[in-house]
Amino acid sequence: MEIAIGIYDKFTALDCVGPYDVLSRLPGARVRWLAAAPGPVRADAGLVVHAEASFADVPRPDLLLVPGGMRFPSHEEDPELLEWIASAHEHTKWTTSVCTGSLALGAAGILEGVPATSHWAAIDALAQYGAVPTRDRVVIAGKIATAAGVSAGIDLALTLCERIAGRDTAEAIQLGIEYDPQPPLNSGNAGEVSDELKQRALETLLASQ
Amino acid sequence: MEIAIGIYDKFTALDCVGPYDVLSRLPGARVRWLAAAPGPVRADAGLVVHAEASFADVPRPDLLLVPGGMRFPSHEEDPELLEWIASAHEHTKWTTSVCTGSLALGAAGILEGVPATSHWAAIDALAQYGAVPTRDRVVIAGKIATAAGVSAGIDLALTLCERIAGRDTAEAIQLGIEYDPQPPLNSGNAGEVSDELKQRALETLLASQ
Repeated sequence: MEIAIGIYDKFTALDCVGPYDVLSRLPGARVRWLAAAPGPVRADAGLVVHAEASFADVPRPDLLLVPGGMRFPSHEEDPELLEWIASAHEHTKWTTSVCTGSLALGAAGILEGVPATSHWAAIDALAQYGAVPTRDRVVIAGKIATAAGVSAGIDLALTLCERIAGRDTAEAIQLGIEYDPQPPLNSGNAGEVSDELKQRALETLLASQ
Repeated sequence: MEIAIGIYDKFTALDCVGPYDVLSRLPGARVRWLAAAPGPVRADAGLVVHAEASFADVPRPDLLLVPGGMRFPSHEEDPELLEWIASAHEHTKWTTSVCTGSLALGAAGILEGVPATSHWAAIDALAQYGAVPTRDRVVIAGKIATAAGVSAGIDLALTLCERIAGRDTAEAIQLGIEYDPQPPLNSGNAGEVSDELKQRALETLLASQ
Protein backbone atom coordinates (compact mmCIF):
# COMPACT_ATOMS: atom_id res chain seq x y z
CA MET A 1 0.00 0.00 0.00
CA GLU A 2 1.53 3.28 -1.12
CA ILE A 3 0.77 6.16 1.23
CA ALA A 4 1.69 9.65 0.01
CA ILE A 5 1.89 12.69 2.27
CA GLY A 6 1.83 15.91 0.28
CA ILE A 7 3.60 18.80 2.00
CA TYR A 8 4.18 22.46 1.16
CA ASP A 9 5.77 25.55 2.66
CA LYS A 10 4.52 26.27 6.22
CA PHE A 11 2.63 23.00 6.73
CA THR A 12 1.97 21.96 10.33
CA ALA A 13 4.24 19.01 11.08
CA LEU A 14 2.12 17.25 13.71
CA ASP A 15 -0.83 17.16 11.27
CA CYS A 16 1.01 14.58 9.20
CA VAL A 17 3.65 13.10 11.52
CA GLY A 18 0.84 11.75 13.72
CA PRO A 19 -0.74 9.84 10.80
CA TYR A 20 2.70 8.88 9.43
CA ASP A 21 3.72 7.18 12.68
CA VAL A 22 0.41 5.29 12.69
CA LEU A 23 -0.06 4.40 9.01
CA SER A 24 3.58 3.42 8.49
CA ARG A 25 2.97 0.52 10.94
CA LEU A 26 0.34 -1.03 8.63
CA PRO A 27 1.59 -4.33 7.17
CA GLY A 28 2.96 -3.72 3.68
CA ALA A 29 2.62 0.04 3.90
CA ARG A 30 5.18 2.43 2.47
CA VAL A 31 4.92 6.12 3.32
CA ARG A 32 6.38 8.63 0.90
CA TRP A 33 6.87 12.35 1.60
CA LEU A 34 6.18 14.45 -1.49
CA ALA A 35 6.33 18.14 -2.39
CA ALA A 36 6.24 20.26 -5.54
CA ALA A 37 9.94 19.44 -5.87
CA PRO A 38 12.12 17.01 -3.92
CA GLY A 39 14.20 18.53 -1.14
CA PRO A 40 13.73 20.45 2.09
CA VAL A 41 10.32 21.78 3.07
CA ARG A 42 9.92 24.10 6.05
CA ALA A 43 7.06 23.54 8.49
CA ASP A 44 5.28 26.49 10.09
CA ALA A 45 7.21 26.33 13.37
CA GLY A 46 10.66 25.76 11.89
CA LEU A 47 11.12 22.02 11.44
CA VAL A 48 12.60 21.12 8.05
CA VAL A 49 11.44 17.85 6.49
CA HIS A 50 12.96 16.27 3.40
CA ALA A 51 10.57 15.51 0.55
CA GLU A 52 11.93 12.43 -1.21
CA ALA A 53 10.11 12.96 -4.49
CA SER A 54 7.78 15.32 -6.34
CA PHE A 55 4.02 15.02 -6.64
CA ALA A 56 4.52 14.14 -10.31
CA ASP A 57 6.70 11.18 -9.31
CA VAL A 58 3.82 9.49 -7.43
CA PRO A 59 0.70 10.08 -9.48
CA ARG A 60 -1.34 7.15 -8.14
CA PRO A 61 -0.92 6.60 -4.38
CA ASP A 62 -3.36 4.29 -2.66
CA LEU A 63 -3.80 6.74 0.20
CA LEU A 64 -3.19 10.46 -0.11
CA LEU A 65 -2.89 12.72 2.95
CA VAL A 66 -2.68 16.51 3.02
CA PRO A 67 -1.79 18.31 6.26
CA GLY A 68 -2.94 21.79 7.16
CA GLY A 69 -0.85 24.81 7.88
CA MET A 70 -0.85 28.41 8.92
CA ARG A 71 -1.75 29.51 5.43
CA PHE A 72 -4.27 27.76 3.20
CA PRO A 73 -2.80 26.11 0.11
CA SER A 74 -3.93 28.10 -2.92
CA HIS A 75 -4.00 27.88 -6.70
CA GLU A 76 -1.59 30.82 -6.76
CA GLU A 77 1.06 29.41 -4.44
CA ASP A 78 0.57 25.64 -4.65
CA PRO A 79 -0.73 24.74 -8.12
CA GLU A 80 1.22 21.45 -8.22
CA LEU A 81 -0.28 20.31 -4.90
CA LEU A 82 -3.85 21.06 -5.95
CA GLU A 83 -3.42 19.49 -9.39
CA TRP A 84 -1.92 16.38 -7.79
CA ILE A 85 -4.83 16.06 -5.35
CA ALA A 86 -7.42 16.38 -8.14
CA SER A 87 -5.68 13.93 -10.40
CA ALA A 88 -4.56 11.34 -7.82
CA HIS A 89 -7.99 11.35 -6.18
CA GLU A 90 -9.47 9.69 -9.27
CA HIS A 91 -7.54 6.52 -8.41
CA THR A 92 -7.01 6.53 -4.63
CA LYS A 93 -8.55 4.12 -2.18
CA TRP A 94 -8.49 6.92 0.40
CA THR A 95 -8.12 10.68 0.00
CA THR A 96 -7.52 12.28 3.39
CA SER A 97 -6.64 15.50 5.15
CA VAL A 98 -5.90 16.85 8.60
CA CYS A 99 -6.69 20.34 9.87
CA THR A 100 -6.84 22.98 7.11
CA GLY A 101 -5.63 20.34 4.66
CA SER A 102 -9.34 19.91 3.91
CA LEU A 103 -9.30 23.39 2.36
CA ALA A 104 -6.70 22.08 -0.08
CA LEU A 105 -9.03 19.20 -0.95
CA GLY A 106 -11.78 21.78 -1.44
CA ALA A 107 -9.61 24.05 -3.58
CA ALA A 108 -8.73 21.00 -5.67
CA GLY A 109 -12.43 20.65 -6.42
CA ILE A 110 -13.18 17.31 -4.83
CA LEU A 111 -15.44 18.31 -1.91
CA GLU A 112 -18.56 19.45 -3.79
CA GLY A 113 -21.48 18.19 -1.68
CA VAL A 114 -19.14 16.22 0.60
CA PRO A 115 -19.36 16.37 4.43
CA ALA A 116 -15.95 17.38 5.77
CA THR A 117 -14.22 18.85 8.81
CA SER A 118 -11.23 21.12 9.45
CA HIS A 119 -9.52 23.07 12.22
CA TRP A 120 -12.24 24.79 14.30
CA ALA A 121 -10.99 28.22 13.27
CA ALA A 122 -11.25 27.40 9.56
CA ILE A 123 -14.19 25.05 9.24
CA ASP A 124 -16.64 27.63 7.92
CA ALA A 125 -14.32 28.28 4.97
CA LEU A 126 -15.11 24.79 3.67
CA ALA A 127 -18.51 25.98 2.46
CA GLN A 128 -16.92 28.12 -0.26
CA TYR A 129 -15.88 24.88 -1.96
CA GLY A 130 -19.36 23.38 -1.79
CA ALA A 131 -18.42 21.07 1.09
CA VAL A 132 -20.77 20.45 4.01
CA PRO A 133 -18.89 21.68 7.12
CA THR A 134 -19.30 18.99 9.79
CA ARG A 135 -18.05 19.57 13.32
CA ASP A 136 -16.88 16.06 14.12
CA ARG A 137 -13.30 15.10 14.92
CA VAL A 138 -13.13 12.61 12.06
CA VAL A 139 -15.52 12.70 9.10
CA ILE A 140 -15.66 9.85 6.60
CA ALA A 141 -17.65 10.32 3.41
CA GLY A 142 -17.07 7.51 0.94
CA LYS A 143 -13.32 7.41 0.38
CA ILE A 144 -12.76 10.97 1.57
CA ALA A 145 -11.72 11.18 5.22
CA THR A 146 -11.03 14.50 6.94
CA ALA A 147 -9.85 15.26 10.47
CA ALA A 148 -10.22 18.33 12.70
CA GLY A 149 -7.21 20.35 13.87
CA VAL A 150 -3.61 19.12 14.20
CA SER A 151 -3.78 16.35 16.84
CA ALA A 152 -6.97 14.89 15.29
CA GLY A 153 -4.81 13.28 12.62
CA ILE A 154 -3.91 10.54 15.09
CA ASP A 155 -7.58 9.65 15.60
CA LEU A 156 -8.13 9.76 11.83
CA ALA A 157 -5.19 7.47 11.13
CA LEU A 158 -6.22 4.86 13.69
CA THR A 159 -9.76 4.93 12.30
CA LEU A 160 -8.33 4.30 8.83
CA CYS A 161 -6.14 1.48 10.16
CA GLU A 162 -9.22 -0.33 11.39
CA ARG A 163 -10.98 0.11 8.04
CA ILE A 164 -7.90 -0.94 6.05
CA ALA A 165 -6.44 -3.77 8.13
CA GLY A 166 -9.06 -4.71 10.71
CA ARG A 167 -9.54 -4.21 14.40
CA ASP A 168 -6.73 -6.46 15.65
CA THR A 169 -4.09 -4.56 13.69
CA ALA A 170 -5.48 -1.16 14.63
CA GLU A 171 -5.49 -2.12 18.32
CA ALA A 172 -1.88 -3.27 18.07
CA ILE A 173 -0.79 -0.03 16.41
CA GLN A 174 -2.63 2.09 18.99
CA LEU A 175 -0.85 0.18 21.77
CA GLY A 176 2.46 0.50 19.92
CA ILE A 177 2.22 4.30 20.10
CA GLU A 178 0.81 4.02 23.63
CA TYR A 179 -2.17 6.15 22.67
CA ASP A 180 -4.00 6.45 25.96
CA PRO A 181 -4.25 10.24 25.99
CA GLN A 182 -4.44 12.15 29.26
CA PRO A 183 -4.72 15.83 28.33
CA PRO A 184 -3.61 17.88 31.33
CA LEU A 185 -6.24 20.54 30.67
CA ASN A 186 -9.80 20.55 29.43
CA SER A 187 -9.52 23.12 26.67
CA GLY A 188 -9.18 21.13 23.45
CA ASN A 189 -12.78 21.24 22.24
CA ALA A 190 -13.67 24.56 20.60
CA GLY A 191 -17.36 23.89 21.14
CA GLU A 192 -16.88 24.01 24.90
CA VAL A 193 -14.63 27.04 25.46
CA SER A 194 -15.07 30.80 25.67
CA ASP A 195 -14.62 33.16 22.73
CA GLU A 196 -11.85 34.80 24.72
CA LEU A 197 -9.91 31.51 24.90
CA LYS A 198 -10.41 30.97 21.17
CA GLN A 199 -8.97 34.41 20.53
CA ARG A 200 -5.94 33.62 22.69
CA ALA A 201 -5.45 30.32 20.90
CA LEU A 202 -5.38 32.08 17.51
CA GLU A 203 -2.93 34.67 18.80
CA THR A 204 -0.67 31.90 20.10
CA LEU A 205 -0.71 30.13 16.74
CA LEU A 206 0.00 33.30 14.78
CA ALA A 207 2.77 34.47 17.10
CA SER A 208 4.74 31.28 16.60
CA GLN A 209 5.15 31.71 12.83
CA MET B 1 13.65 30.23 25.80
CA GLU B 2 15.88 27.90 23.82
CA ILE B 3 14.41 24.44 23.33
CA ALA B 4 16.71 21.79 21.87
CA ILE B 5 15.49 18.47 20.45
CA GLY B 6 18.30 15.95 20.17
CA ILE B 7 17.77 13.38 17.42
CA TYR B 8 19.71 10.37 16.16
CA ASP B 9 19.43 7.59 13.58
CA LYS B 10 16.09 5.72 13.82
CA PHE B 11 14.41 8.06 16.29
CA THR B 12 10.60 7.96 16.40
CA ALA B 13 9.34 11.17 14.81
CA LEU B 14 6.04 11.55 16.67
CA ASP B 15 7.91 11.36 20.01
CA CYS B 16 9.37 14.79 19.34
CA VAL B 17 7.12 16.37 16.70
CA GLY B 18 4.25 16.28 19.21
CA PRO B 19 6.23 18.28 21.81
CA TYR B 20 7.72 20.50 19.07
CA ASP B 21 4.30 21.58 17.81
CA VAL B 22 3.27 22.37 21.40
CA LEU B 23 6.42 23.95 22.86
CA SER B 24 7.15 26.04 19.76
CA ARG B 25 3.90 27.95 20.52
CA LEU B 26 5.25 29.18 23.87
CA PRO B 27 5.85 32.94 23.81
CA GLY B 28 9.52 33.63 23.12
CA ALA B 29 10.36 30.00 22.47
CA ARG B 30 12.76 28.87 19.79
CA VAL B 31 12.98 25.18 18.96
CA ARG B 32 16.22 23.86 17.49
CA TRP B 33 16.73 20.40 15.97
CA LEU B 34 20.16 19.00 16.78
CA ALA B 35 22.12 15.85 15.93
CA ALA B 36 25.70 14.64 16.19
CA ALA B 37 26.29 16.55 12.96
CA PRO B 38 24.03 18.97 11.06
CA GLY B 39 22.16 17.48 8.13
CA PRO B 40 19.61 14.78 7.40
CA VAL B 41 18.57 12.31 10.11
CA ARG B 42 16.38 9.34 9.28
CA ALA B 43 13.50 8.43 11.58
CA ASP B 44 12.59 4.79 12.21
CA ALA B 45 9.71 4.72 9.73
CA GLY B 46 11.44 6.60 6.92
CA LEU B 47 10.84 10.32 7.49
CA VAL B 48 13.99 12.40 7.04
CA VAL B 49 14.34 15.46 9.26
CA HIS B 50 17.02 18.11 8.86
CA ALA B 51 19.15 18.82 11.93
CA GLU B 52 20.09 22.49 11.77
CA ALA B 53 23.12 22.26 14.07
CA SER B 54 25.22 19.85 16.09
CA PHE B 55 24.90 19.10 19.80
CA ALA B 56 28.17 20.95 20.33
CA ASP B 57 26.67 24.08 18.76
CA VAL B 58 24.00 24.34 21.47
CA PRO B 59 25.67 23.36 24.75
CA ARG B 60 23.26 25.16 27.08
CA PRO B 61 19.61 24.89 26.02
CA ASP B 62 16.95 25.91 28.53
CA LEU B 63 14.91 22.82 27.72
CA LEU B 64 16.37 19.62 26.31
CA LEU B 65 14.20 16.88 24.84
CA VAL B 66 15.26 13.42 23.70
CA PRO B 67 12.84 11.23 21.72
CA GLY B 68 12.84 7.46 21.76
CA GLY B 69 13.34 5.09 18.91
CA MET B 70 13.39 1.52 17.81
CA ARG B 71 16.89 1.07 19.14
CA PHE B 72 18.15 2.49 22.43
CA PRO B 73 20.79 5.19 22.11
CA SER B 74 24.09 3.76 23.34
CA HIS B 75 27.59 4.85 24.27
CA GLU B 76 28.84 2.87 21.29
CA GLU B 77 26.60 4.38 18.62
CA ASP B 78 25.64 7.77 20.05
CA PRO B 79 28.46 9.07 22.24
CA GLU B 80 27.88 12.71 21.22
CA LEU B 81 24.21 12.52 22.21
CA LEU B 82 24.91 11.04 25.63
CA GLU B 83 27.77 13.45 26.34
CA TRP B 84 25.56 16.38 25.34
CA ILE B 85 22.75 15.24 27.64
CA ALA B 86 25.09 14.86 30.60
CA SER B 87 26.77 18.19 30.05
CA ALA B 88 23.74 20.28 29.07
CA HIS B 89 21.71 18.87 31.96
CA GLU B 90 23.93 20.73 34.42
CA HIS B 91 22.46 24.01 33.19
CA THR B 92 18.97 23.24 31.86
CA LYS B 93 15.73 24.43 33.37
CA TRP B 94 14.11 21.22 32.09
CA THR B 95 15.64 17.95 30.92
CA THR B 96 12.99 15.83 29.23
CA SER B 97 12.39 12.68 27.23
CA VAL B 98 9.62 10.81 25.46
CA CYS B 99 9.33 7.03 25.10
CA THR B 100 12.69 5.23 25.19
CA GLY B 101 14.41 8.61 25.21
CA SER B 102 14.48 8.11 28.99
CA LEU B 103 16.96 5.28 28.44
CA ALA B 104 19.25 7.83 26.83
CA LEU B 105 18.91 10.03 29.92
CA GLY B 106 19.74 6.97 31.99
CA ALA B 107 22.73 6.01 29.85
CA ALA B 108 23.94 9.60 30.21
CA GLY B 109 24.02 9.03 33.95
CA ILE B 110 21.43 11.51 35.13
CA LEU B 111 18.65 9.22 36.39
CA GLU B 112 20.32 7.72 39.46
CA GLY B 113 17.56 7.50 42.08
CA VAL B 114 15.15 9.45 39.86
CA PRO B 115 11.54 8.31 39.22
CA ALA B 116 11.04 8.08 35.45
CA THR B 117 8.83 6.48 32.80
CA SER B 118 9.32 5.10 29.28
CA HIS B 119 7.51 3.11 26.59
CA TRP B 120 5.65 0.23 28.30
CA ALA B 121 7.82 -2.33 26.51
CA ALA B 122 11.05 -0.74 27.75
CA ILE B 123 10.24 0.66 31.17
CA ASP B 124 11.91 -2.16 33.16
CA ALA B 125 15.22 -1.36 31.44
CA LEU B 126 15.30 1.96 33.31
CA ALA B 127 16.33 0.17 36.50
CA GLN B 128 19.76 -0.69 35.06
CA TYR B 129 20.57 3.02 35.23
CA GLY B 130 19.47 3.34 38.84
CA ALA B 131 16.21 5.06 37.91
CA VAL B 132 12.93 4.24 39.65
CA PRO B 133 10.61 2.90 36.91
CA THR B 134 7.25 4.62 37.35
CA ARG B 135 4.24 3.59 35.26
CA ASP B 136 2.62 6.99 34.84
CA ARG B 137 2.08 8.74 31.52
CA VAL B 138 4.09 11.79 32.58
CA VAL B 139 6.59 11.72 35.46
CA ILE B 140 8.10 14.92 36.81
CA ALA B 141 10.97 14.68 39.28
CA GLY B 142 12.58 18.03 39.93
CA LYS B 143 13.58 19.37 36.55
CA ILE B 144 13.59 15.96 34.90
CA ALA B 145 10.35 15.18 33.07
CA THR B 146 9.79 11.88 31.25
CA ALA B 147 6.84 10.68 29.17
CA ALA B 148 5.58 7.20 28.31
CA GLY B 149 5.49 5.92 24.72
CA VAL B 150 5.31 8.02 21.54
CA SER B 151 1.98 9.90 21.81
CA ALA B 152 2.58 10.69 25.50
CA GLY B 153 4.94 13.46 24.43
CA ILE B 154 1.93 15.67 23.71
CA ASP B 155 0.67 15.30 27.28
CA LEU B 156 4.19 15.94 28.58
CA ALA B 157 4.59 19.09 26.51
CA LEU B 158 1.26 20.58 27.57
CA THR B 159 2.11 19.82 31.20
CA LEU B 160 5.40 21.67 30.75
CA CYS B 161 3.63 24.60 29.07
CA GLU B 162 1.51 25.07 32.16
CA ARG B 163 4.56 24.97 34.44
CA ILE B 164 6.56 27.32 32.21
CA ALA B 165 3.97 29.86 31.06
CA GLY B 166 0.88 29.34 33.21
CA ARG B 167 -2.52 27.83 32.75
CA ASP B 168 -3.97 30.43 30.37
CA THR B 169 -1.20 29.92 27.84
CA ALA B 170 -1.28 26.14 28.13
CA GLU B 171 -5.05 26.13 27.58
CA ALA B 172 -4.65 28.31 24.50
CA ILE B 173 -1.98 26.03 23.03
CA GLN B 174 -4.06 22.92 23.72
CA LEU B 175 -7.00 24.52 21.89
CA GLY B 176 -4.68 25.63 19.08
CA ILE B 177 -3.78 22.02 18.33
CA GLU B 178 -7.41 21.00 18.99
CA TYR B 179 -6.29 18.39 21.50
CA ASP B 180 -9.57 16.78 22.44
CA PRO B 181 -8.53 13.19 21.76
CA GLN B 182 -11.09 10.58 20.77
CA PRO B 183 -9.18 7.31 20.33
CA PRO B 184 -11.26 5.02 18.13
CA LEU B 185 -10.20 1.95 20.12
CA ASN B 186 -9.54 1.20 23.77
CA SER B 187 -6.14 -0.43 23.48
CA GLY B 188 -3.63 2.30 24.34
CA ASN B 189 -2.96 1.42 27.98
CA ALA B 190 -0.55 -1.51 28.36
CA GLY B 191 -1.79 -2.09 31.90
CA GLU B 192 -5.24 -2.99 30.59
CA VAL B 193 -4.57 -5.25 27.61
CA SER B 194 -3.75 -8.92 27.05
CA ASP B 195 -0.22 -10.27 26.70
CA GLU B 196 -1.22 -11.45 23.24
CA LEU B 197 -2.08 -7.88 22.18
CA LYS B 198 1.23 -6.63 23.59
CA GLN B 199 3.03 -9.24 21.53
CA ARG B 200 1.18 -8.14 18.39
CA ALA B 201 2.00 -4.51 19.12
CA LEU B 202 5.70 -5.30 19.35
CA GLU B 203 5.59 -7.29 16.12
CA THR B 204 3.87 -4.37 14.38
CA LEU B 205 6.53 -1.94 15.57
CA LEU B 206 9.41 -4.18 14.55
CA ALA B 207 7.92 -5.03 11.15
CA SER B 208 7.74 -1.36 10.16
CA GLN B 209 11.48 -0.74 10.52
